[in-house]
Amino acid sequence: MNIPTSKHPRLVIIGGGFAGLKLAKSLSGQPVQVVLLDQHNYHAFQPLFYQVATAGLEPGSIAYPFRKIFSASKQVFFRLACVNFIDLPNKQIKADIGNLSYDYLVIATGATTNFFGNKNIERLAMPMKSVSEALNIRSLMLQNLEKALLTNDANDKDSLMGIVIVGGGPTGVELAGAIAELKRDILPKDYPDLDMRVMDIHLIDSNARVLKEFDERSSQVAMSELIKMGVDLRLNERVTDYDGKTIQCASGQNLPAAMVIWAAGVKANIPEGIPEAQLTGGRISVNAYNQLIDFPEVFAIGDVAVMISEEYPRGHPMVAQTALQQGALLSRNMKQLLQGLAMQPFHYKNLGSMATIGRNKAVVDFPNFRLKGWWAWCMWLFVHVFQLIGFRNKVVVMISWAQNYLRHARDLRLIIRPFKQSN
Amino acid sequence: MNIPTSKHPRLVIIGGGFAGLKLAKSLSGQPVQVVLLDQHNYHAFQPLFYQVATAGLEPGSIAYPFRKIFSASKQVFFRLACVNFIDLPNKQIKADIGNLSYDYLVIATGATTNFFGNKNIERLAMPMKSVSEALNIRSLMLQNLEKALLTNDANDKDSLMGIVIVGGGPTGVELAGAIAELKRDILPKDYPDLDMRVMDIHLIDSNARVLKEFDERSSQVAMSELIKMGVDLRLNERVTDYDGKTIQCASGQNLPAAMVIWAAGVKANIPEGIPEAQLTGGRISVNAYNQLIDFPEVFAIGDVAVMISEEYPRGHPMVAQTALQQGALLSRNMKQLLQGLAMQPFHYKNLGSMATIGRNKAVVDFPNFRLKGWWAWCMWLFVHVFQLIGFRNKVVVMISWAQNYLRHARDLRLIIRPFKQSN
Repeated sequence: MNIPTSKHPRLVIIGGGFAGLKLAKSLSGQPVQVVLLDQHNYHAFQPLFYQVATAGLEPGSIAYPFRKIFSASKQVFFRLACVNFIDLPNKQIKADIGNLSYDYLVIATGATTNFFGNKNIERLAMPMKSVSEALNIRSLMLQNLEKALLTNDANDKDSLMGIVIVGGGPTGVELAGAIAELKRDILPKDYPDLDMRVMDIHLIDSNARVLKEFDERSSQVAMSELIKMGVDLRLNERVTDYDGKTIQCASGQNLPAAMVIWAAGVKANIPEGIPEAQLTGGRISVNAYNQLIDFPEVFAIGDVAVMISEEYPRGHPMVAQTALQQGALLSRNMKQLLQGLAMQPFHYKNLGSMATIGRNKAVVDFPNFRLKGWWAWCMWLFVHVFQLIGFRNKVVVMISWAQNYLRHARDLRLIIRPFKQSN
Repeated sequence: MNIPTSKHPRLVIIGGGFAGLKLAKSLSGQPVQVVLLDQHNYHAFQPLFYQVATAGLEPGSIAYPFRKIFSASKQVFFRLACVNFIDLPNKQIKADIGNLSYDYLVIATGATTNFFGNKNIERLAMPMKSVSEALNIRSLMLQNLEKALLTNDANDKDSLMGIVIVGGGPTGVELAGAIAELKRDILPKDYPDLDMRVMDIHLIDSNARVLKEFDERSSQVAMSELIKMGVDLRLNERVTDYDGKTIQCASGQNLPAAMVIWAAGVKANIPEGIPEAQLTGGRISVNAYNQLIDFPEVFAIGDVAVMISEEYPRGHPMVAQTALQQGALLSRNMKQLLQGLAMQPFHYKNLGSMATIGRNKAVVDFPNFRLKGWWAWCMWLFVHVFQLIGFRNKVVVMISWAQNYLRHARDLRLIIRPFKQSN
């Protein structure tokens, strides 16, 4: 892999998401050679993928090149790579760009979409776990509306204008709200020939409420806002099959929808070579220091790891906060390790959860109190802009949002690369 | 194609580039039904494609959705369509989305890349006539540098780091300058492991100078600036073949380059169905009113048309100005026609040409005087921002440029969709 030899031990981090990036940044300047491997050459800010999908933001505003982040860090090496196999006993990684041995390894490969084995849905529904997938959703939504213009067949129109979002977590709620706003503010002007009453936005969840990780009252706020915005909420419902035109529900009802967005589940993205014994419920089991039980020189952090504790018997929530906190702790622990000092165990600090539903509408759950409406929405905006990497990105996102807010605009409804179903 | 019938005559415009868009916008509100067909759902600002290719701007900043432009125009209908055939005698268009009859037709299909029949170059070189092609150049340039990091073979490295730009018109000059700035300001920090002296940027032109349409003195300024910036200028040179790694020149010299950008020629994009008798030198012959000689209800404007006059015996230059002026004149003439009044003939007004070479460096040729250096560069910036459509686009481009200027930054070096050679 052409990494220079170093007098310092080599720490390889697989994955530059919230966890891996936090760790790599914090270790810069330490007596350790850091090699960061990622399949993309940029860090992407997942919480705003839904805005890329709904034409509110450009991908370049929520992505930032790794090489820029580490341009001043002489001991950090980035490589664009797909890891094929980890040889844990021999401390070696096999990637598409060659092999690499390590002294320490950090697995921060995150999570990917979980279709729960439903092959038809996997083939035909749209996931949203990458920038590219978010752009696909944007393109397909616009392509379907262009097609709807051309048909006089009512069934075809119903299907082409129908959108089903499966999964009522923050991603599903934010998508449903943003699409409902597009339908209300933008699409009637763009498509005066289409009767927008035909466009149905369905949000399906198998639970009795959306945002099930939030306080019950926040869920109620979100649900009543979504219903007011015209979203068809279907709770206690599951989808069972999809043929590209109509989605079948467990209740027996079928919904016409040429676009199904799948936000219903994630699963850990486990590299090959991790033995079964190291896994619990599909994630990598780690101790309180994020170490693999049998390989103490190997760590797993973020969504890919599960750390069982009394307080969290099923592991911590698979969210950005856990990833950031584990990345930060591991960087402190690595510094301890390198000095031969004892590591600190992980303690999750719940800083709260937030989801935006639309214009002036959001819910924020802090551990001790809750916010909703305009104040929650402002806080959501502030927190998200603040977390973006790069000055240009912060400014461009603020301007885009200001314009979207003041002029009810979404000027990025561009089909740069048409989406082609590969079925 | 599902266009409602109208009491007004129907004017169909094929192509929403500078010419077609100008015409469609100017006809809004007139007693004519306008149908605009384009293969993209947005107007793209071609003069800044090179900045998309060199990670200075996002595609969303230089593209604007047609439907937004025409959202208040009740008599303008946009359809996303590829036109397959024009049946001139029967006044009908055959497109992938169906057929459409017209009373008036305007062909504004512009120009496409001309590889002059060289199949290997067509297959392996990178054109830049669409947003998507500009993004392909950005991705491939970054992918090649990532690959160059992995090899110790000097020949492979030479090739992966070599860039050949064929064609010394404004596009080639602007690309060469922008890539030379990337090499000087950005890449050494991004790729400290690569010896940037290995990276060669060649600009090849078959003429004795670049910018041959400009004043000789402006060409000299551009050439001396490019040479100062480290661009290897090869004049009076042609390329004869390319295998993806090495490009062969007519002089016998071979240059290693895994990326060849083809900016050496354009040809009119003629829809099928236009008889040979209507063509001159590969473009559609039109009279002084942009009418086809044998079909007076059909017009051709912009790059696709050639209007022979005493002053311009080979037609007007294939540039944005001609397109804009012909679009504007035709809209006035259509209004005359609709009132049964006489049309005005076209007179080209040369407003000058401009090309930017880099930071603080540009040349502007007015008919009566010339500008160079900082003043020319400011004028170039002003003219380009002013011409962009959309408030958000103007502001985002200004901010991106301010940051690129002040911080020597190009933060958009993202490989969102890797380029895969389809050979």
